[in-house]
Amino acid sequence: MPQKRSLETREKILKAATAAFSRDGFDATGVAEICAAAGVSKGAFYHHFQSKQEVFLKLTEEWLSGLDQQIQRLAASAEDVPQALWQTAKIAPAVFADARGQVPLFLEFWRQANRDPQIWQATVAPYHRYTEYFAGMIRQGIEEGSLREMPPEVGARILVSLAVGLLLQGALDPEGADWGTLVGDGVRLLLEGMGANSKREWRSTLDGE
Amino acid sequence: MPQKRSLETREKILKAATAAFSRDGFDATGVAEICAAAGVSKGAFYHHFQSKQEVFLKLTEEWLSGLDQQIQRLAASAEDVPQALWQTAKIAPAVFADARGQVPLFLEFWRQANRDPQIWQATVAPYHRYTEYFAGMIRQGIEEGSLREMPPEVGARILVSLAVGLLLQGALDPEGADWGTLVGDGVRLLLEGMGANSKREWRSTLDGE
Repeated sequence: MPQKRSLETREKILKAATAAFSRDGFDATGVAEICAAAGVSKGAFYHHFQSKQEVFLKLTEEWLSGLDQQIQRLAASAEDVPQALWQTAKIAPAVFADARGQVPLFLEFWRQANRDPQIWQATVAPYHRYTEYFAGMIRQGIEEGSLREMPPEVGARILVSLAVGLLLQGALDPEGADWGTLVGDGVRLLLEGMGANSKREWRSTLDGE
Repeated sequence: MPQKRSLETREKILKAATAAFSRDGFDATGVAEICAAAGVSKGAFYHHFQSKQEVFLKLTEEWLSGLDQQIQRLAASAEDVPQALWQTAKIAPAVFADARGQVPLFLEFWRQANRDPQIWQATVAPYHRYTEYFAGMIRQGIEEGSLREMPPEVGARILVSLAVGLLLQGALDPEGADWGTLVGDGVRLLLEGMGANSKREWRSTLDGE
């Protein structure tokens, strides 16, 4: 089954690259090193990927698409938009645990994005996508009357920025606070600022618990 | 006047380092390069600074202490805490313009902070300081009755995280949004979520203007 073997090779490369990037950083990791750790030839590597940039982008894509599925599943069962956003915030602790290895890589990529237009494009795409997703939800909340009037993309950018800020601080200073729980607190404060009814079942550390 | 000359040398080094770090990145810039650009000897450099790390930390410190002064000046004239925080948010556009050159360096430093305990300490210190500063303001707001009961440090961490997230996205995608103005919108949403009276004079893009 050559196709199965090819998929296995691809998985081996992705797994070895994840470990090497996390340990040594993106810049310091070479394709040769990834191949050695994965136990594959350079030919096999370049059959699957054009470059280590592409490997990194693929890893990010897989991480984010797993996240998207979780977000959509959590939002689907909610009764209205504030509840959907509040449910979404509940995945934060798990996301933070996952992201601890990823964030230093993001930082490195961000830095490169300042210099390389192609990497820049790939780096900003997820932010745009999440901003559009949350803008759609906020628009729906305004229509259903669960949120007050506001330009939806303004609210969405603020939600995304809060998440980015918490993720980055959480990566820098993991023991400094309960970052995952803070996402819930922050989303709740923003939702209340956006006019969501505060008599909801959203007890959190804001209540001093 | 040897003391004046010594101060001038120090300024020349800081100025040359700022330009070199911004252009080439922190890793890629050597002490020799900074000395050449500043027109000073290595001996003069090491008279003032132990390492390029120290130069960077000094640059950050100067940037932040300028920021602190602005924040305190703006907050001093406010009638209550929500107004003080709203005033503080108004410096954001200027901070964002300043930070555009600094943020790629911060990213690089953050990445190093993940590996070097001394750099880590220097990197997290400003976050702790701002969190304490804003926690103090929120505590005052709760006492004066302009904000509702909550653990002040939770609210403070969320304010700081929002600012960090907006700064980083603003650095990555400067043309993507009016990031400086978004700080005001975000602070306003959080303050309203924290129970601040919404009949204030805080018109912003949230009103569709």
